[in-house]
Amino acid sequence: MGERLLVVGGDPAGMAAAIQARTDGPHLEIVALVPGAWPGYDAGGIGGLLRGTLRSPSQLVAPGPDRLRAMRIDLRTDHRLVGIDLDRRSAEVRNVVHGRTFRLGFDSLHLATGTRARRAEWPGADSPNVHTAGSLEEADHFTTEIAERKASHLVVVGSGFRAVSMAAALAQRGLSVTLLARGEGLEVDLDDDMAAMLSKELRAVGVDLRTGAEVAEVDDSSVYTSEGTVPADLVLLAGEEEPVVSVAQAGGIALGPTGALKVDRQQRTSAEGVWAAGGCAEATHLLCGEVAAQAVTADSTGPAVGARQGRVAGINIAGGYATFPGVLATVVSRVGSLGFGRTGLSSVQADLAGFAHVSATASASPAGVAAATGYGVEGNWARLRLLAERRTGALLGAQVASERAMASELNVAAAAIAAHLDVEALAAMDLASSGVDAPPLLQEAARQLFDSLR
Amino acid sequence: MGERLLVVGGDPAGMAAAIQARTDGPHLEIVALVPGAWPGYDAGGIGGLLRGTLRSPSQLVAPGPDRLRAMRIDLRTDHRLVGIDLDRRSAEVRNVVHGRTFRLGFDSLHLATGTRARRAEWPGADSPNVHTAGSLEEADHFTTEIAERKASHLVVVGSGFRAVSMAAALAQRGLSVTLLARGEGLEVDLDDDMAAMLSKELRAVGVDLRTGAEVAEVDDSSVYTSEGTVPADLVLLAGEEEPVVSVAQAGGIALGPTGALKVDRQQRTSAEGVWAAGGCAEATHLLCGEVAAQAVTADSTGPAVGARQGRVAGINIAGGYATFPGVLATVVSRVGSLGFGRTGLSSVQADLAGFAHVSATASASPAGVAAATGYGVEGNWARLRLLAERRTGALLGAQVASERAMASELNVAAAAIAAHLDVEALAAMDLASSGVDAPPLLQEAARQLFDSLR
Repeated sequence: MGERLLVVGGDPAGMAAAIQARTDGPHLEIVALVPGAWPGYDAGGIGGLLRGTLRSPSQLVAPGPDRLRAMRIDLRTDHRLVGIDLDRRSAEVRNVVHGRTFRLGFDSLHLATGTRARRAEWPGADSPNVHTAGSLEEADHFTTEIAERKASHLVVVGSGFRAVSMAAALAQRGLSVTLLARGEGLEVDLDDDMAAMLSKELRAVGVDLRTGAEVAEVDDSSVYTSEGTVPADLVLLAGEEEPVVSVAQAGGIALGPTGALKVDRQQRTSAEGVWAAGGCAEATHLLCGEVAAQAVTADSTGPAVGARQGRVAGINIAGGYATFPGVLATVVSRVGSLGFGRTGLSSVQADLAGFAHVSATASASPAGVAAATGYGVEGNWARLRLLAERRTGALLGAQVASERAMASELNVAAAAIAAHLDVEALAAMDLASSGVDAPPLLQEAARQLFDSLR
Repeated sequence: MGERLLVVGGDPAGMAAAIQARTDGPHLEIVALVPGAWPGYDAGGIGGLLRGTLRSPSQLVAPGPDRLRAMRIDLRTDHRLVGIDLDRRSAEVRNVVHGRTFRLGFDSLHLATGTRARRAEWPGADSPNVHTAGSLEEADHFTTEIAERKASHLVVVGSGFRAVSMAAALAQRGLSVTLLARGEGLEVDLDDDMAAMLSKELRAVGVDLRTGAEVAEVDDSSVYTSEGTVPADLVLLAGEEEPVVSVAQAGGIALGPTGALKVDRQQRTSAEGVWAAGGCAEATHLLCGEVAAQAVTADSTGPAVGARQGRVAGINIAGGYATFPGVLATVVSRVGSLGFGRTGLSSVQADLAGFAHVSATASASPAGVAAATGYGVEGNWARLRLLAERRTGALLGAQVASERAMASELNVAAAAIAAHLDVEALAAMDLASSGVDAPPLLQEAARQLFDSLR
């Protein structure tokens, strides 16, 4: 038997590592365990399932089982890791269909067990009408339940981008949706005015957003909260996520301060020959230098971040050298006709991290876009906020709310932040502005900041 | 009388400097001379006039004369600079309507005289049917001529992005258009295969592209070339541009090696108190360190580059401090259903600059896009090429051909190149990929390059 790599978990970080290790290490025997029926799905597409625009989970699976097996990746669906013996280089594995447990030796181990919704404490939290939709199986089961129970009143519990996008997706399906956010507002790491726009848009698509609503109890037909009773055929937990690390921890692999697996730049854990990536692992924030909890990667761009980390792990596992520098917590999400996005730090986050900062906001009305581009083109409403460090002008963060595709300007901001550029460099940057594609809101905001700093 | 700033020329770099100097220097008296009737137009919109989608040049003028005057900018339309006496701080100015010449003193002088089409040498080059469309006046006059002469056969002479976009715009108007390119192919600083796609698309929109066609002579009805005779009611020169610098040069202001005005990072010329920006000035290429001729800024993004330089000049003129780091020759252009864009160096340019380089190409078919994003979204065909230095992996250039908006990925590439990032950093970058907005072709190409380099 050759050298065996055991990949564990349904996070995209798993299959990305397996595929990369296969490419780089033709000599490796690769066994991949996934807890459900589908490998390597893109969790960002779960919204499509909830919305009803995707009919089958298999549409989200790429590459599929056949292609993985053709690559000589020994894919075992419906298998969970239940124990690790590092000294013996052996894993205890359970087939969740038959309930049978067996041992599997490994030389290298890659953990991509992801995150799961933190279980709620309130009475009724374990009722059959309370669901999660973090994995494809869960989302599929939940949408089946909606149909079978002929559910019309849904309650989503949570306040982050995942909860927001799930609530919007379900409302778009024509269901009556209440979103219960425990805090005073949404917790989406946007500045207050931008978060308020998101709340407004959420209400515009029909979501009954209730803030400051702590769940007290759930029964068959209702959710009882600190702010009154809400009818609920089904309840969806879309709040805090926690990393799935208990087996790894029991096996002696170290956790970091956030409770996720501690990894270095090569995605190596504390244990020799054991790697981790995706939601179960920590990531360094590029600006704060601090480790970020898995929450960072649990949002819409999480799967992509996990896949990038997984590829880095795969290269290193096969004997190469690659590093993952860190994240900016970039997120984009669409609610109704408005897209929202963020990267880097919000004003509150910059304060918390100790950055003295300034911000500028550039807006475009349709008429304003036409004037700015000089083309008389059709424009859409958009607002972009840029944050920079006072004195140095170093870029700290960007937030966008827009009727049009907004990834363009947000991603240029992410690149500039990752490269530690300042507002002057961004204002002078040789970017294409073809009017329709990339109205120069980003550079306008950079100019405003440069003006305010000099 | 206070301190007077004299701004000269119709390049967007002029009005941008005037407006910035006005904001920063309330004490300044600002006089702005423009050669035609319209200040500060966006030359990138000239395509709209040629295409017929814009009816009046005034649609391209922002801000207009009234707004400039309300800002206390003494705008004098139809005025040309004909002499500079640096010792006496005095300019000789001609009112081109009355032909009257007068003197105007200045404390600071900002030159934004732009570029003009290089006059052709062949017999008939001065005929009334031979036109240029570099300025709004010229483009307006040309489109009027098309209508009045009931022209149906047009010949465009040139081979760069300007010629290509003008030919495509005129063909879109329903005219019979021949594009005469002197060289073996288009000279658009794209790699051969990408340039070939541009040629193909140009033909698909009805442009009769003839390469290797040297013009020998022009008369009322025909263009005689090395490759045969082409019927031509009107001829449009859209080839090489040259900087408008003769008056500045006669006044003792130094030119650089490209024949444009030599400027430093602050946009200062060789003469004390004289600034220059836009097409009449040189710019440093961020990768080569070499000065680039005005040709760089004569293409579709030229006006935006000029405006950025102009703002830097305006800040410095008013006593502040700002710098312009350089350009990447970023260009985007649309021909028919395909958009083309480039930034940084092409393979040939990288060779010439002495970079040992590698490249990778990522493509997306509609099905491929859907698979890559996992959303089953509607995708469009796209191809992206990325160049990096061999050994270091430093990013050198990007080229895009795409059925969809392509500024998004191109601009992220431009930001990464400007920041001197390498392929590993780009591959790991925390970018939003919302499927429709920003399919991850850029990062796929970066991964391919990283794989080939390690």
